[in-house]
Amino acid sequence: MTAVKRAASMEGEAFSTLCTPALVVDVDGVKRNAQRMIERCQNLGVQLRPHMKTHKTLECADIMTGGSRRCIVVSTLPEACFYADHGFDDILYAYSLPFDKVERCAALSERLDLFQVLLDHPHALDQLKKRPLRDGRLWHIWLKLDCGNGRAGVLHSEPEALTLAQAICETEGVELTGVYAHCGNSYNCKGVEEIQTVAQETTDFTLQFMEKLRTVGITCKSSIGSTPSCSHPVKDMAQLSEVHPGNYGFYDVQQTVIGSCSLEDVAVRVLTRVIGHCPHRNQLLIDCGWSGLSLDGAGKLPTGYAVIEGHPNLKLLSMTQEHGRVEPISGPLDYSKYPLGALLALIPYHSCASAAMHPVYHVHSEGRLLGKWIPTRGW
Amino acid sequence: MTAVKRAASMEGEAFSTLCTPALVVDVDGVKRNAQRMIERCQNLGVQLRPHMKTHKTLECADIMTGGSRRCIVVSTLPEACFYADHGFDDILYAYSLPFDKVERCAALSERLDLFQVLLDHPHALDQLKKRPLRDGRLWHIWLKLDCGNGRAGVLHSEPEALTLAQAICETEGVELTGVYAHCGNSYNCKGVEEIQTVAQETTDFTLQFMEKLRTVGITCKSSIGSTPSCSHPVKDMAQLSEVHPGNYGFYDVQQTVIGSCSLEDVAVRVLTRVIGHCPHRNQLLIDCGWSGLSLDGAGKLPTGYAVIEGHPNLKLLSMTQEHGRVEPISGPLDYSKYPLGALLALIPYHSCASAAMHPVYHVHSEGRLLGKWIPTRGW
Repeated sequence: MTAVKRAASMEGEAFSTLCTPALVVDVDGVKRNAQRMIERCQNLGVQLRPHMKTHKTLECADIMTGGSRRCIVVSTLPEACFYADHGFDDILYAYSLPFDKVERCAALSERLDLFQVLLDHPHALDQLKKRPLRDGRLWHIWLKLDCGNGRAGVLHSEPEALTLAQAICETEGVELTGVYAHCGNSYNCKGVEEIQTVAQETTDFTLQFMEKLRTVGITCKSSIGSTPSCSHPVKDMAQLSEVHPGNYGFYDVQQTVIGSCSLEDVAVRVLTRVIGHCPHRNQLLIDCGWSGLSLDGAGKLPTGYAVIEGHPNLKLLSMTQEHGRVEPISGPLDYSKYPLGALLALIPYHSCASAAMHPVYHVHSEGRLLGKWIPTRGW
Repeated sequence: MTAVKRAASMEGEAFSTLCTPALVVDVDGVKRNAQRMIERCQNLGVQLRPHMKTHKTLECADIMTGGSRRCIVVSTLPEACFYADHGFDDILYAYSLPFDKVERCAALSERLDLFQVLLDHPHALDQLKKRPLRDGRLWHIWLKLDCGNGRAGVLHSEPEALTLAQAICETEGVELTGVYAHCGNSYNCKGVEEIQTVAQETTDFTLQFMEKLRTVGITCKSSIGSTPSCSHPVKDMAQLSEVHPGNYGFYDVQQTVIGSCSLEDVAVRVLTRVIGHCPHRNQLLIDCGWSGLSLDGAGKLPTGYAVIEGHPNLKLLSMTQEHGRVEPISGPLDYSKYPLGALLALIPYHSCASAAMHPVYHVHSEGRLLGKWIPTRGW
């Protein structure tokens, strides 16, 4: 069934019982996206470590790990605790070790089979030295490399990277588990060729660094990731130990613009209702503002802050806290098509950002509501 | 104590125990802002009906109502239920009646002494007719007027406004409680003169409409509001029954740009820590991304997405989900001033948007932590 048909079937059915704005997740879509990524990684022969930051729910984590509840990556410590509390293990907290959270990281390290932290500065290593783990346990450390993303990580080309890796290896009570590079620069790409150029470059830089490590007698794992690069992997990624994409469970309009997926693959919507007619402005109002969608994507799409499913001539022009202003891209609005109370489905520009605004996700299969997923939040 | 000195004292004290990013509320500042608004309304002789949408907490509502727990306005139905569940009454749900929430509104109307809804379309009145309240209770209705804001509301100048008011008065089981105009267009102002021009215009249009009502034998309350207009009210606002500002409890940088308040009055910060040094980019990284601050304010300030308290030369250049990139406005960064782990205080551009990202607010008095406020969320 096409996305447009799905949306049409939604409107007549159970979705009409939901109070809006409501984030709805197409569980079949999530399963398809997850299964494709699992198979892609199996074909490559590389371990998939899915990132939880987009959804932060147990149910979606179950799907993305193929039911194993092992080998995940998280962006916040409450995510790590939430998953640990619910039987997940082999958790990588892939965030430059925050000095305020060392004790909580130690507690997780002493409690789980395999809790892993990440760092990119010798001062962070000092923090771990000051808090040796109990029972002879080791801190499992990933070294964060910046392979061109321009955010966190020690620059792959700088001698400091090798020096820090060696320092980790020479430190008692810690272990260099792996080398980690996030290719967030793939978000600047348009199309598969550009995505694969970034994937290739990140892989090359990471593998060159692994080679440098080997020459000084160090072996450990390697991992790169981002949804674009892992949706269109290059062959050489097979030489890595792991990959760590995250957004692909839901996907979003941004990923379609990048070229990671098609609009059919996007498994999440923000449902909204028409709450006002403004013929003097040729606009209508919907009950979704930035508190239900986020402001991500400003100026990026001809249809405004989202794609309004099945209504390609509509643009989500602006939002305040609880209101959205919608206008036609051209021509006058036919208000008879949008009576007060009518449901519209917004396909989010950035599903990570839209999901972050919702305390509950409503899960459905072809419009039949199956239940709720409750994300964890905070720091 | 100046805001800068307060921030300085914060860093050395209890704030260092908070995991970041953390939203901190200066309760003394909130009390000052609330008291000033209470006095301003007393001096005008107009009833203050504070809006809860910025904070959505019981404690701040207590302060803003001067402890009465009566006469508030909310933007979502869960806010209304949350306050009703905790002993608040005389609640106005100031949102164009959403057809999916009529039954929940009916339940509140039948339970509270005074629950009030708002509408701007005859179809909404039809919805209320279809659901008469039990025990002879009346639906208490505010008519939403658009007096130049350009969002919800029936245009003050159109004959439909009077027709709708008359229809409400002629309908059994409902009562026209008041006329409500939000002057959100005051957010486009710079300086007191421009604010007062909008306040005057909104007041004039509203009072002219009240006069039209009187000529057809209708009397009811009137209310206008917005934090800018109520921070600098014009004399004629004394002729209104009520005003309904909300953001002023916290205020924010946007309000200082508009001219509603000074930076000293802003009672909320997002605390963040330095988590990375990037000398090759002349940047540092902080542990606050859009998930801790929101993307509101893009392109509005020379200092980026926020003002970094006590560091006027720093700019919050960009954010991803959990990272912020900070750079100097001019010159090279002196990293010795920003060691890894150092606390910085972000003064939010838009406190409504930043507060919406936090499941808990940490409340302090001059840096001593007093407790937590838990906001309500959802729809």
